[in-house]
Amino acid sequence: MTNDNCPWVSGVVHKVRRQIAQDPSLNYEYLPSKGMRSFIQASLELLFGKHSQAIMENRVGGVHTVGDSGAFQLGAQFLRIWSRGAQVACIISSQKEPHRLIFKDLDYTVYEHSIWDPNQLCADPILLLDVVEHLPLGSILVIGSIIDCKLTQGQWAKLMFTIKSKQIFPFFDFPCQGLSTGDLEEEAIILQYFVSQGLEFFCSQSLSKNFGIYDEGVGLLVVVTLNNQHLLCVLSQLTNCAQALWLSPPATGARIITSVLCNPVLLGEWKQSLKEAVESMILIKEKVKEKLRLLGTPGSWNHITEQTGIHGFLGLNDQQVEYLIKQKHIYVPRNSRINFTCINTHNIDYITESIHEAVCFSKDP
Amino acid sequence: MTNDNCPWVSGVVHKVRRQIAQDPSLNYEYLPSKGMRSFIQASLELLFGKHSQAIMENRVGGVHTVGDSGAFQLGAQFLRIWSRGAQVACIISSQKEPHRLIFKDLDYTVYEHSIWDPNQLCADPILLLDVVEHLPLGSILVIGSIIDCKLTQGQWAKLMFTIKSKQIFPFFDFPCQGLSTGDLEEEAIILQYFVSQGLEFFCSQSLSKNFGIYDEGVGLLVVVTLNNQHLLCVLSQLTNCAQALWLSPPATGARIITSVLCNPVLLGEWKQSLKEAVESMILIKEKVKEKLRLLGTPGSWNHITEQTGIHGFLGLNDQQVEYLIKQKHIYVPRNSRINFTCINTHNIDYITESIHEAVCFSKDP
Repeated sequence: MTNDNCPWVSGVVHKVRRQIAQDPSLNYEYLPSKGMRSFIQASLELLFGKHSQAIMENRVGGVHTVGDSGAFQLGAQFLRIWSRGAQVACIISSQKEPHRLIFKDLDYTVYEHSIWDPNQLCADPILLLDVVEHLPLGSILVIGSIIDCKLTQGQWAKLMFTIKSKQIFPFFDFPCQGLSTGDLEEEAIILQYFVSQGLEFFCSQSLSKNFGIYDEGVGLLVVVTLNNQHLLCVLSQLTNCAQALWLSPPATGARIITSVLCNPVLLGEWKQSLKEAVESMILIKEKVKEKLRLLGTPGSWNHITEQTGIHGFLGLNDQQVEYLIKQKHIYVPRNSRINFTCINTHNIDYITESIHEAVCFSKDP
Repeated sequence: MTNDNCPWVSGVVHKVRRQIAQDPSLNYEYLPSKGMRSFIQASLELLFGKHSQAIMENRVGGVHTVGDSGAFQLGAQFLRIWSRGAQVACIISSQKEPHRLIFKDLDYTVYEHSIWDPNQLCADPILLLDVVEHLPLGSILVIGSIIDCKLTQGQWAKLMFTIKSKQIFPFFDFPCQGLSTGDLEEEAIILQYFVSQGLEFFCSQSLSKNFGIYDEGVGLLVVVTLNNQHLLCVLSQLTNCAQALWLSPPATGARIITSVLCNPVLLGEWKQSLKEAVESMILIKEKVKEKLRLLGTPGSWNHITEQTGIHGFLGLNDQQVEYLIKQKHIYVPRNSRINFTCINTHNIDYITESIHEAVCFSKDP
């Protein structure tokens, strides 16, 4: 959200939208079921890098989907048909994810695990490893936002070993590349690491949030396999599923994004707008922390600025959250994970003072 | 297709697309899962009329979907969950429909029946009645393009009686209102008739083809129930399904269509463009018939101009179709149903001469 409480839109998007509307040469024919070829290519290069070994080896591909929910629906349907053994889908993330609905509807047993430790006030790698170790053989592991979960070299190795030996199928949720740190490449390192370790996986890549095209359902189901033959088989089956689901995906959003990603000047403008959005987000978090410090609110509030990304935990307990909701009409989820961009110059004083009150006056558990 | 073999786009769409791109006040936030409220309202009024009794009684509603495939997927999922008894989905239409895939994937037994009689060279109401009479109790009946199937008053009554007594659930496929005759109201009469007969049904309404917005997946699953209470229950469950399928539908196409439908001047321009498209389609058919007459091609070719709409049967047999494909590289489907708008001033001579040859020279069965 912007400071005026409107959905953030990268400035370059408005410009490209106008250009596209004025282009008389454009063809508005149905897209193929696989989606817009140039969009898929550009998005994959954004994720894995222009010179990615795996892209050159033709073992990375994608199907253009209706948003990230569409990507999960498509991927889950494929797995249901072609990986009948898997009965468990486990979602690890910092928040409750809407995809659990999709897996539940397809008769998976769904486990959900938060890796946020409310006592230590940070994401805990031990929790992550523990969850994965206790999964049944052949489970699907949906890996949500774990960028704040700092694994050591040894822990990474252990995670890889467990995933491989238990034949766990990773399904990444990658909804807003660049909006955690402003660094597009850095945020995709985890995917490149999984590729380098010789794993096959799916990834739902959404480009709605980092461009600010929320109402167009721009998504991609990314497929990484060990060789081109596997890739072609999987893409062919996914295309069949997509045909039954929506026949062909919507084009406008994908067209805007492709125009930006394929034009060095526009790409530069977009990256700059991402950096600015991240900077203003960091500024908000710092202001919240500073105001709480000035109010003398008990406790350390470093975890607010230590978390990257739009969403983050305030680190409040049930009573404190209830106080905010009932006494102050600030509707925070029970786990106190909020969208920090909803705090702006107009409401920051009210919010921080309310948090202060909640911490000081709410009853102990 | 236009005469230059480009997808037809209503002129008003280009204009509105430019206006929308330049509107700084627009909000690009996610749509709700049910879709764009104003789009749903405007589309329903287009279908049932602005002063429809059923709309006033609040027993007609809709969910904005990703194209017509999305509408079928959504409706079929709902029926699978909430109408477990139904095992058969029967599709009656003039052509093979892609929705059979959707019902098959949901474990329905799918029957497909064409109501085109290749001997009489017309759509046959007796075939239609016969199919419906032989359906198992509680089947789903997908009613595709049957506008050319002229039922008598008595046949309509018989059809209604069978549908009601067998508890058959009608699911209309309504992909291009206005593109058969240019008369929007006339083409929707069949739906209004079903409403007036007190039936509950679904209808997939696509507005892609009659606006020429093919690549945006603009659809609506229309729900007609007997009362408002039923409607609210059904819409609530459909919204849940839509949430899992794609979370929220794409907005651009719906926004353009709503802008046109809600503005009397633009609406007039759109209706005019539809009429012109239909007129040029009729002209093509007449030219084809005339050219075949001039070539002295054996047989009556009146069925070409008697069929309304974009698609129509050439009325060729298997050998003749094979001749066109193998000898002339004109890739006509086996039932000889073609998109007449693909015939234009550049290819009409080649096509009619090829049909002539096929009829004269292909081997008898």
